[in-house]
Amino acid sequence: MRKFILAPDSFKGSLSAIEICEVLEERIKAHLPEAEIISLPVADGGEGTVDCLLYAMEGEKITSASVNPYFEPMQASYGLVNEGKTAIIEMAACAGLPLVEDRKNPLETTTFGVGKQILDALNHGCREFVIGLGGSSTNDGGCGCAAALGVEFTDEQGESFVPAGGTLDRIAKIDYSTIDSRIKECRIKVMCDIDNPLYGTSGAAYIFGPQKGADDEMVKLLDANLRHLAGKIQSEMGVDVAEIPGAGAAGGMGAGMVAFLSGELVSGIDAVLDLTGYDELLDGTELVLTGEGRIDGQSLRGKVVVGVARRAAKKNVPVVAIVGDIGDDIEPVYDTGVTAVLSINRVAVPFSEARKRSRQDLKLTADTLMRLLEL
Amino acid sequence: MRKFILAPDSFKGSLSAIEICEVLEERIKAHLPEAEIISLPVADGGEGTVDCLLYAMEGEKITSASVNPYFEPMQASYGLVNEGKTAIIEMAACAGLPLVEDRKNPLETTTFGVGKQILDALNHGCREFVIGLGGSSTNDGGCGCAAALGVEFTDEQGESFVPAGGTLDRIAKIDYSTIDSRIKECRIKVMCDIDNPLYGTSGAAYIFGPQKGADDEMVKLLDANLRHLAGKIQSEMGVDVAEIPGAGAAGGMGAGMVAFLSGELVSGIDAVLDLTGYDELLDGTELVLTGEGRIDGQSLRGKVVVGVARRAAKKNVPVVAIVGDIGDDIEPVYDTGVTAVLSINRVAVPFSEARKRSRQDLKLTADTLMRLLEL
Repeated sequence: MRKFILAPDSFKGSLSAIEICEVLEERIKAHLPEAEIISLPVADGGEGTVDCLLYAMEGEKITSASVNPYFEPMQASYGLVNEGKTAIIEMAACAGLPLVEDRKNPLETTTFGVGKQILDALNHGCREFVIGLGGSSTNDGGCGCAAALGVEFTDEQGESFVPAGGTLDRIAKIDYSTIDSRIKECRIKVMCDIDNPLYGTSGAAYIFGPQKGADDEMVKLLDANLRHLAGKIQSEMGVDVAEIPGAGAAGGMGAGMVAFLSGELVSGIDAVLDLTGYDELLDGTELVLTGEGRIDGQSLRGKVVVGVARRAAKKNVPVVAIVGDIGDDIEPVYDTGVTAVLSINRVAVPFSEARKRSRQDLKLTADTLMRLLEL
Repeated sequence: MRKFILAPDSFKGSLSAIEICEVLEERIKAHLPEAEIISLPVADGGEGTVDCLLYAMEGEKITSASVNPYFEPMQASYGLVNEGKTAIIEMAACAGLPLVEDRKNPLETTTFGVGKQILDALNHGCREFVIGLGGSSTNDGGCGCAAALGVEFTDEQGESFVPAGGTLDRIAKIDYSTIDSRIKECRIKVMCDIDNPLYGTSGAAYIFGPQKGADDEMVKLLDANLRHLAGKIQSEMGVDVAEIPGAGAAGGMGAGMVAFLSGELVSGIDAVLDLTGYDELLDGTELVLTGEGRIDGQSLRGKVVVGVARRAAKKNVPVVAIVGDIGDDIEPVYDTGVTAVLSINRVAVPFSEARKRSRQDLKLTADTLMRLLEL
């Protein structure tokens, strides 16, 4: 039986990874009705991560009581896979930017709801976690999440509180001994494809604060507060999070995951490929199809196409990438094990027009590939 | 040895067929240094036809004395192939629109120079001709060409003259007996990819007159004159040219070629493929690469891709088309024997930008194809 693996990223602004899998699967079946097709839509940790992984794996979606970025009650979902042993949580579910709509304010928003989801999964017996960062409305360094799990933050007056972006500077003591003891039994992988440190001009506040509603003054305050948090984590817990690449992801959630949950920051693509058993699935595979909205020869870090190809190359399985745009000088992409890259662009029109026809163009490009496979 | 045939049309507005062959050949050689590559750049009969065929075939370019559309002396070139037995003449060489620059006037311009080139080829011993129509500045129904070859046109006063677009209505008699007798030994194929009749609202004057400088009044006059010519050809020579599809090509040159030279109107692609021995070259060929600026499922008549594919299909040789834009619904193209169609578009940009990068995009698309052939 001819076996294909589909492992695309989304085409940002036009097609989700799941939609791409659906189109590719349908077109392969049209040419090869008997083919075995394995769909592994890849998410980067942001919104849609749970849906992507539940599309790829046996599992169930759990909806439980949590809170939104303003501590208001909400129902939120996460995924359970591996016979319930592994939870997949996207922080966007309880701390996402779309949840705050016109109330953007990273001084006040919290990741507390993310901790509530982790607690719920612990209660379901999970001890393995894949937590997706990205798309957050928060800048609390993960303190809200930690507080939900039992970490106690107290101020100079000895008063316990849940720090948010605007109150991190009030933290005088961090009591880590009170954390839910089950956390210590857990293995937590954190999906994170950015390199930013916790604070400073490439840190969370400066780079991502503005899109969360921070003006210049607020950015400075948020940044100073994250610096204060790093100092306290260092002095109270003996962990140096300041320089960890990715510590600044999702409003400092990267740092919090490392410091409070002993989380391991991994690339989104590696998390997905590990979780879905991609390496084993490659055995007997004729061709892997991957893709993303745009690929070029620069900055291959965290690129889905490259992650998919490197592992396939180790097993001598060819990889074809179907992408939106192909940028300049893609030789480095070929060097990672990609056999060929096809653009879905079929007519010379600007992206504003191209995006409207991307589903159809993808379909026709998949057809072209299947036709070329017959040569 | 792996054998490839390259038979592309030009990408109008960006790349000539010869340039396309050069790029494809270079890229195939880069992947398969030992490959045998046969380049047959396809021309439609217009400017560049001679160069295309001389690129594809052993032959020489002959430059001889002729006249331009205003009977002014000029040197013009044509091709000799098949050991000098076959002449390839493009009417644009002596009657082309670029030759008149700011003197566009289809009332006065003549195809006399085309006849001069035919005479020169007859003197070289040629008895086979491939004459490309297209790109003309004339509307003389081929009378100038015929006159150069000895056909005598006389008016009501018995005065002999060379009719031009504005004086066709003066023709009272046509004496065909005075034509160079060697013409009767000749086999003349005329490359013509349009269907227009000689006169009427889809005829030469109405459809092509304006681009040659005719205003509304002049179009009416030119059209009436072509109608008069058709009547005279019918009454004097017993030939009915009025309804022949293609009679209206190149200012009625299609009609003149049929009536005065017993020419056979053929599609450009068939003329090129016949002349170059394409059918025989297909034997042992692994893949034919063709292409054109744009392809879609409508109006496949005269399309290079389709002409190339239909013949390849008879010999079970696969065909891949590399094109600029791919239009809608190309299933009918696949039905002609095209295995797959690749667009060179790699980024979503409008044609004004895309055309500037078309050579590089073609090169990279050829690379992609060669990479996919390795699968």
